[in-house]
Amino acid sequence: MAGTDRTKEAVLGGPAIVLVEPQMGENIGTAARAMLNFGLTDLRLVRPRDPWPNEKARAPASRADVVIDGARVYRQTTDAVAELHHVYATTARPRDMLKPVLTPRAAMEAARRHAAAGETCGILFGREKSGLHNEDIAVSKAIVAVPVNPAFASLNLAQAVLILAYEWLLAGDDTPDRDFRQGATRPATHEELMGLFEHLETELDAGGFLYPPEKRPAMVRNVRNIFSRAGLMEQEVRTLRGIVSALTKPRRRGNP
Amino acid sequence: MAGTDRTKEAVLGGPAIVLVEPQMGENIGTAARAMLNFGLTDLRLVRPRDPWPNEKARAPASRADVVIDGARVYRQTTDAVAELHHVYATTARPRDMLKPVLTPRAAMEAARRHAAAGETCGILFGREKSGLHNEDIAVSKAIVAVPVNPAFASLNLAQAVLILAYEWLLAGDDTPDRDFRQGATRPATHEELMGLFEHLETELDAGGFLYPPEKRPAMVRNVRNIFSRAGLMEQEVRTLRGIVSALTKPRRRGNP
Repeated sequence: MAGTDRTKEAVLGGPAIVLVEPQMGENIGTAARAMLNFGLTDLRLVRPRDPWPNEKARAPASRADVVIDGARVYRQTTDAVAELHHVYATTARPRDMLKPVLTPRAAMEAARRHAAAGETCGILFGREKSGLHNEDIAVSKAIVAVPVNPAFASLNLAQAVLILAYEWLLAGDDTPDRDFRQGATRPATHEELMGLFEHLETELDAGGFLYPPEKRPAMVRNVRNIFSRAGLMEQEVRTLRGIVSALTKPRRRGNP
Repeated sequence: MAGTDRTKEAVLGGPAIVLVEPQMGENIGTAARAMLNFGLTDLRLVRPRDPWPNEKARAPASRADVVIDGARVYRQTTDAVAELHHVYATTARPRDMLKPVLTPRAAMEAARRHAAAGETCGILFGREKSGLHNEDIAVSKAIVAVPVNPAFASLNLAQAVLILAYEWLLAGDDTPDRDFRQGATRPATHEELMGLFEHLETELDAGGFLYPPEKRPAMVRNVRNIFSRAGLMEQEVRTLRGIVSALTKPRRRGNP
């Protein structure tokens, strides 16, 4: 589902994703897939419940083998992030800690700035039910909290990873907010548009549609408005002129 | 995982999520959970492969029962979106169609504007492997494409739903990019900070650390810099003064 060829290149070298005490191999696999979807490859596991490699992670990773095969396992969080410059902790519940709380967007924009300066980042994710330990949060630079529906706030582990990875890619992405796939064609020129209008209005005059004369200017304006704001392509103008011609051709009556 | 109590209220009345020919009940359930995480509740299914209700959707929905129980099933996409004002189609592959292509962010900001004007939206998602049919895309207002790693672009159905739902919530969310959880304390005043500095520097003078005299101003400046940029809270200033006192107390030698 969903994706595009407009992103220039895979973005590698992004933040390390550090899963602390993940319980389900399936979640590790789904997280790996989400990472690679958005160009992240550095997966670190701290005390996973089940031995690693874990075959249950393979299928949901859906061929994100580069992430699964490259995953490293650690006994302690502090070992997993030892060489990193900036460590962020994701958490849902408010903790009594004096610590900046960032949105995923703000955190990943910061991570991009760090990366541009040659500095590395890691993002800690806690175990499925209970989240991160306070001691892991205490040595993190900041907390990252995903804004959610407070009445249903429990985000799946892999989905939390997905959102951070998505924001990482977006923070470095220059996809325009609004684009227009035009293939082999181009926007119609003003002259082509006027040609369409005059063609249509000639036929409408002939058919008695633009009547009475005192109402003609407003009716013409309304019709021109519809097609002007559609942002027509050259090809579409030709299609519409073909339609006008087809509709005005003398009709065969009865069976063909 | 991840979430916050800072979001003001559940956002209801958001876009309808329309899954066209979903194959796996698990994906429907995971999509339902992702919807409710971000305040969406209107789930519509067009020709699901398996009969609905589908018990396989229940467990991964993780108590998002309001979404599962409220889901409606349709024979045709056109029936599923009949009363909606704005229909968007998510797609990964470029199609030869003259149609605006929006990022999830731009599309959901537009959806918020429509909602504010009392207009309703729906977002179409195609089946897991093959995506939407061209005829469903043709009658949509615009295409929504999630920017992804082009080398690994295949996004899981529920994850595509998650990203649109997340962007819907964000578009109406006023969570500050950067916040600071301060609990019962408050930022230290300048006077409190100066009290700490003078306390510390007095002890450092006594210990001979700020020596020789010609280097003292620069050394004081460096130390004051460290603590100034930390954005200390009143409580933390007291803790640091306690530390200075503890470190300067005459030590007991030998065993306690």
